[in-house]
Amino acid sequence: MRVGLVAKVSSRTAVQAAHEVGDWLRRRGCEVALDEATSRAQGRSDGPSFDPGESYDFVVVLGGDGTLLAAARTLTSGVPILGVNLGNLGFLTEVGTSELYPTLNDVLAGKTGTEKRALFDVTLERTSGTVLRYRVLNDAVIAKSALARIITLDLRVDGGLVARYRSDGLIMSTPTGSTAYNLSAGGPIVNPLLPVALLTPICPHTFSLRPLVVPDSATIEVSLETEREEVYLTLDGQEGTSLGYRDRVRVTRSDLAITLVKANRRTFYDSLRGKLHWGG
Amino acid sequence: MRVGLVAKVSSRTAVQAAHEVGDWLRRRGCEVALDEATSRAQGRSDGPSFDPGESYDFVVVLGGDGTLLAAARTLTSGVPILGVNLGNLGFLTEVGTSELYPTLNDVLAGKTGTEKRALFDVTLERTSGTVLRYRVLNDAVIAKSALARIITLDLRVDGGLVARYRSDGLIMSTPTGSTAYNLSAGGPIVNPLLPVALLTPICPHTFSLRPLVVPDSATIEVSLETEREEVYLTLDGQEGTSLGYRDRVRVTRSDLAITLVKANRRTFYDSLRGKLHWGG
Amino acid sequence: MRVGLVAKVSSRTAVQAAHEVGDWLRRRGCEVALDEATSRAQGRSDGPSFDPGESYDFVVVLGGDGTLLAAARTLTSGVPILGVNLGNLGFLTEVGTSELYPTLNDVLAGKTGTEKRALFDVTLERTSGTVLRYRVLNDAVIAKSALARIITLDLRVDGGLVARYRSDGLIMSTPTGSTAYNLSAGGPIVNPLLPVALLTPICPHTFSLRPLVVPDSATIEVSLETEREEVYLTLDGQEGTSLGYRDRVRVTRSDLAITLVKANRRTFYDSLRGKLHWGG
Amino acid sequence: MRVGLVAKVSSRTAVQAAHEVGDWLRRRGCEVALDEATSRAQGRSDGPSFDPGESYDFVVVLGGDGTLLAAARTLTSGVPILGVNLGNLGFLTEVGTSELYPTLNDVLAGKTGTEKRALFDVTLERTSGTVLRYRVLNDAVIAKSALARIITLDLRVDGGLVARYRSDGLIMSTPTGSTAYNLSAGGPIVNPLLPVALLTPICPHTFSLRPLVVPDSATIEVSLETEREEVYLTLDGQEGTSLGYRDRVRVTRSDLAITLVKANRRTFYDSLRGKLHWGG
Repeated sequence: MRVGLVAKVSSRTAVQAAHEVGDWLRRRGCEVALDEATSRAQGRSDGPSFDPGESYDFVVVLGGDGTLLAAARTLTSGVPILGVNLGNLGFLTEVGTSELYPTLNDVLAGKTGTEKRALFDVTLERTSGTVLRYRVLNDAVIAKSALARIITLDLRVDGGLVARYRSDGLIMSTPTGSTAYNLSAGGPIVNPLLPVALLTPICPHTFSLRPLVVPDSATIEVSLETEREEVYLTLDGQEGTSLGYRDRVRVTRSDLAITLVKANRRTFYDSLRGKLHWGG
Repeated sequence: MRVGLVAKVSSRTAVQAAHEVGDWLRRRGCEVALDEATSRAQGRSDGPSFDPGESYDFVVVLGGDGTLLAAARTLTSGVPILGVNLGNLGFLTEVGTSELYPTLNDVLAGKTGTEKRALFDVTLERTSGTVLRYRVLNDAVIAKSALARIITLDLRVDGGLVARYRSDGLIMSTPTGSTAYNLSAGGPIVNPLLPVALLTPICPHTFSLRPLVVPDSATIEVSLETEREEVYLTLDGQEGTSLGYRDRVRVTRSDLAITLVKANRRTFYDSLRGKLHWGG
Repeated sequence: MRVGLVAKVSSRTAVQAAHEVGDWLRRRGCEVALDEATSRAQGRSDGPSFDPGESYDFVVVLGGDGTLLAAARTLTSGVPILGVNLGNLGFLTEVGTSELYPTLNDVLAGKTGTEKRALFDVTLERTSGTVLRYRVLNDAVIAKSALARIITLDLRVDGGLVARYRSDGLIMSTPTGSTAYNLSAGGPIVNPLLPVALLTPICPHTFSLRPLVVPDSATIEVSLETEREEVYLTLDGQEGTSLGYRDRVRVTRSDLAITLVKANRRTFYDSLRGKLHWGG
Repeated sequence: MRVGLVAKVSSRTAVQAAHEVGDWLRRRGCEVALDEATSRAQGRSDGPSFDPGESYDFVVVLGGDGTLLAAARTLTSGVPILGVNLGNLGFLTEVGTSELYPTLNDVLAGKTGTEKRALFDVTLERTSGTVLRYRVLNDAVIAKSALARIITLDLRVDGGLVARYRSDGLIMSTPTGSTAYNLSAGGPIVNPLLPVALLTPICPHTFSLRPLVVPDSATIEVSLETEREEVYLTLDGQEGTSLGYRDRVRVTRSDLAITLVKANRRTFYDSLRGKLHWGG
């Protein structure tokens, strides 16, 4: 089996764990391709480099949800990702340290399933055309800078005007992203397998502007109607770009999806109950 | 064409309008069956009585969303319903007085479309078996009485425990019901065509208990874990029944759906923008 | 010293603790008056009965916040109350089991302070006059019954109309009550020593109806403008009465206040941080 | 009478109105001192310049709440301010165009009252000492930049730790500011005459972090516990400064207060009802 291996390079524990997981997999006859940055952080180069464009049987990501987010966006194929969390369990990285090797055994033995998660394609449109393309697993966020005043955003769904937002910004979230920024801004928790997109305003000035759930088959378009204020588009909380007057951010479901290794019986609801202390 | 006709009997305007609509339809060769209650309110009986179990080409409901809700639940077939609102437009009754006859002309000419809305089957289970069956278009609500203390509810989805709610109650809403009680309790607005169910707590004691959106293919089960407090199950805000300790309320999507006449180009988002003053 | 002693009679632990505290105090020369209900629950009557109308040096309440609430309302004088919580610490009962006897030692030695908490006088007014008077430490709540529809309430402050509420109800809370029902309904947390009253709607239909903080010197009056729906007034979550059309509930700060023994250095903010897991 | 006159210079209407008001007042024997910026915008200089450090009988501000905010902070004395709104009425500028001259007549005739509004002193503390002092009428806001991740803030009240916030930021608001940014972030509406400060988190990550109301006699101190993220302090939405790791923002009630001319019988509640469409 060909296995890709990516670690959170700023975490010594993750890099060390990647080293051990690599050895463990090689001993079981796997060909292991280590992410170049991880390789450098380990100070060794004992095999092929991981290339997101190539095909693997699966990819192991060691780190938190952020590391998995970053890795997931670069993978162009449907390679299954196994997220291993070395700290507190995340919503994407549901396998903990103690379950690591039993889970790898299950994966090698073909005993695990997979689960698809929708990605959204985000483009930034100007009169000059499309100036940016990006793919997100969590969310695309339009937000004013800390020093700017309240901004105006026009939301269109499938070409029709839905609302004029007067707010600090707007979160356009996948169902996977519902437990991320969306939740802090008052949006609902959504089963990640649902075919929906979430539109949640940040600190709306108009009280009736409430979180909105629309089909992910819709074309969502948000235009900035405020001049002369600093406004940014942020993608999965990792990349950002400045927005100008009448810039349009367009969001649609991607043809590509992320495939996650579903390694245990913990459901989405079990994760919620554990992380949010829902009792019972 | 065979047309059913139902009016809000407590509204003199609606009853009078039903009279006129009946005459208008008969002049165009339709066979009109008037709802018995409406017929009585008019003090006349000049034709066949409307029978929800029979088949019609379409049914006209004159009144508000409440009148349509009540009528919709009794219709066992897929007969299209045209909701006409004589006051402020509703989310279900999108045709206003001024559009009434042009719309009827369009319906007779076959120029209008239809839209399906999911119904939920609600059952109340005790150790003795199923004691109540009901069908809702908006919501099933479990709520403590005004004098009771905070109650405990266990939510299970597809058999697995999701959360133990300490709250005043829980709203289980169809997407159509998202703009009804769900919205007052802080739930999101959901496109009514989405295959989802909404679970929104009423005044939760635990802060992390947030509105939850799950697939409508799920089996939702809520059990009352509080003894000796008065608790009620309310169905579409119209019927209520008392709940006892360990009673279970089960909610699933119904095999039946409501068919609404889609008489104009006003989208769900247009209705929202108009009713919630979303500007633009 | 004369000491009153009240226990939560439904708790065997509290009754047993009252027994021990009584003996402990008597050994130190105190005259102990035991609450009659507690006395009965203990099956003994070895001293004078506690009489809320009489004067004591202090009163010990063993139980939760609810027990203290009930006791506090009956005390007409400014007798200091020491709330001892045998379970999880409350906002009113800040002394735990382990601190019980050291704290009593401090009280006998005059090393503890006191803190005043405002009470609100609540009256129910009809055309026939005042039909009910009550004193609350937490809140007066107007709420529809589980089966009723949304109700209309007119709020007047100092005689002037403030708002017409379309909601499930309205909470009128003291600052002490801000961490009780008010918090579940979305109201703010308020330092209990502030001279304010909180007006927080329950599931408001109008989005702009937000929690409102007014001076406690104001006369708050709420009238029920809905006919034919079951609506109740609940007082400190313990007493309830039915409201009719045009009934007016009037709330003002009471001339009386509760005096709490302030037995440790734990501030209100410390209690919040502990109970709400505010970290740091 | 000596009257100061300030207009929103970016509004042609306001500058023109200032011109007319100046003439009107001079014809009635007043000495009118026109704000220099307004004077320049008018292209004339026919009298003494308005100097915020000097004493006047009253100052007329023509513009919106923002113009009044800016003017109010510079006034060191207790000179009464009459806020005239040429557009939609504000919470600070309650006099509209149609009431302008009748109100000025009342002021000259001594028929109007005044109302004090608390100001907060805000300082920015580093190990090197106090690096910034400012006075606000609405709020001091600590907020992360659009591209930064969630930040950590420690709140201390009177020296004791209250909470560790994981959020986008924190609003420290005067009661006057309760209807400004605080309201968009979910904070309560507060009568502006109450002796309180509001602490409202922006998009908190921890659900139990709710708006908090504390005495304005308290010393509020917030320290930034996040390294390497861009964070800003904004004052009345008009001035901003960058914050570094362990910077402390201290907020106390100012010895100075703003005096507003109370020119009509419209109460704070009347303004709310009008602006928020509270019905009745």
